[in-house]
Amino acid sequence: MITRRQIAAASAMFAAMQPRLQAFGQPGPIDVADAGPPSAHDMSTMPAHWTGKEQIALLIYPAFTALDMVGPHYMFTNLMGATTHIVAKTMAPVTSDTGLMFTPSKSFEDCPDQLDIICVPGGTSGTLAAIRDPATLRFLADRGGKARFVTSVCTGSLLLGAAGLLDGYRATSHWATRSILPAVGAIPAEGRIVRDRNRITAAGVSAGLDFGLSMVGDLRDRQYAEVVQLLAEYAPEPPFQSGTPTLASPTTRKLMDDMFAGFIGEAEAACRAARQR
Amino acid sequence: MITRRQIAAASAMFAAMQPRLQAFGQPGPIDVADAGPPSAHDMSTMPAHWTGKEQIALLIYPAFTALDMVGPHYMFTNLMGATTHIVAKTMAPVTSDTGLMFTPSKSFEDCPDQLDIICVPGGTSGTLAAIRDPATLRFLADRGGKARFVTSVCTGSLLLGAAGLLDGYRATSHWATRSILPAVGAIPAEGRIVRDRNRITAAGVSAGLDFGLSMVGDLRDRQYAEVVQLLAEYAPEPPFQSGTPTLASPTTRKLMDDMFAGFIGEAEAACRAARQR
Repeated sequence: MITRRQIAAASAMFAAMQPRLQAFGQPGPIDVADAGPPSAHDMSTMPAHWTGKEQIALLIYPAFTALDMVGPHYMFTNLMGATTHIVAKTMAPVTSDTGLMFTPSKSFEDCPDQLDIICVPGGTSGTLAAIRDPATLRFLADRGGKARFVTSVCTGSLLLGAAGLLDGYRATSHWATRSILPAVGAIPAEGRIVRDRNRITAAGVSAGLDFGLSMVGDLRDRQYAEVVQLLAEYAPEPPFQSGTPTLASPTTRKLMDDMFAGFIGEAEAACRAARQR
Repeated sequence: MITRRQIAAASAMFAAMQPRLQAFGQPGPIDVADAGPPSAHDMSTMPAHWTGKEQIALLIYPAFTALDMVGPHYMFTNLMGATTHIVAKTMAPVTSDTGLMFTPSKSFEDCPDQLDIICVPGGTSGTLAAIRDPATLRFLADRGGKARFVTSVCTGSLLLGAAGLLDGYRATSHWATRSILPAVGAIPAEGRIVRDRNRITAAGVSAGLDFGLSMVGDLRDRQYAEVVQLLAEYAPEPPFQSGTPTLASPTTRKLMDDMFAGFIGEAEAACRAARQR
């Protein structure tokens, strides 16, 4: 039973989150010219566990898939009190596989040492380039080895694994690359979100939304997550039913299998090479 | 019936799309150090209507909601042959409401004159600031008045309407702001995606994925869209069922209604003021 007092407190909390940019620990300069001061609601009666102090880092690298990162980022930035960092090797802008150009908020060097969540998005050729990059693997091994939750979306799990973070863990990946996971010591598992101890891996691209929202539920509570879900109007209605190899038609499956055939071999070789270094 | 020849052609097409960055008309510099040359598959047998020459512009502005834009952007950039632009008032980086910093690929001045799709994302305080900005409204009225499809995600429809582009059109918005649509001359309608002639408006935030994928189906065909859906592994499994006011619990609904109460009044006033200028 939620009391009127709790509702008032929660209302104050969410009022304070809007406009979200002013709220909490956002990376980057704030350039909203006419945004007013933060709301002055009384937040003293808010449930204590609805606010936190999480340090969250999302990795970006050349030709990563932006939606893999932006989905969870939307959910994480609704975690009251958390600080979310966009981390790249250097502070130079990074272009995604679809040409979106992002400016990081932290370099590898400046990224907080102790993270609550480290999250690695996937991609295709860009992810393989990252797997072949010793500095990226060193950064992930260091921060991931100490993080409270080590997470990925899509082929980001290959990168986690290449950094030695999935040895003996059950994990998932984009459906097309799940079979490669043993090359980095992981155990392929079914599921849109796979959790094994503190390793949480999500399936391809759009699974980042489900993953991010589930993390909000884990780090706060179900009521909190349901408010975030309503804020995101996250009641998906895909216009087609072709989002997994099982749902897709044989023709669609064949097109995709052919498309990924070369990539899978290349990815597996890159993963093995990374683990042999 | 899809023939073996068509499958081979389609396979060549999608192979050529990977890595996607090298493929077609992407904005921004390409900084993938070790990406090889584009695939040299034979694409001569590809269905003619699977490739196009669309000019697509997604607007960004200070404190817009990144996921509103990145969801459709993912889908649009899978449209073979299309060119996708990230357009802002100037070429300066733009920070989203959750602190993501994007560099535009085109300024208002440089944006192509004749667009196939113009797409406007939403936000909260940032969207109101854009509604109050004459240069943004002028740009939208100009390009939107000539575009083949005039589209929005979330509160982006208020911005379209403030620019005079929804007069007498059925439209939707984020559920919390749908009732404001009459203030810009639009007719609020039910539906996650609302289409009236060439105006296509999507509901809140995550509806951009459904909208973007449906546009892929409209601009190519169902088979093509189903391949893109499988690429995105778009078979959502929301961990909770709270994504619409009807699905959400009364407590969740009350929290959100309270949260949005002040914003709705402010948004309606901004919309009316924009239409009276």
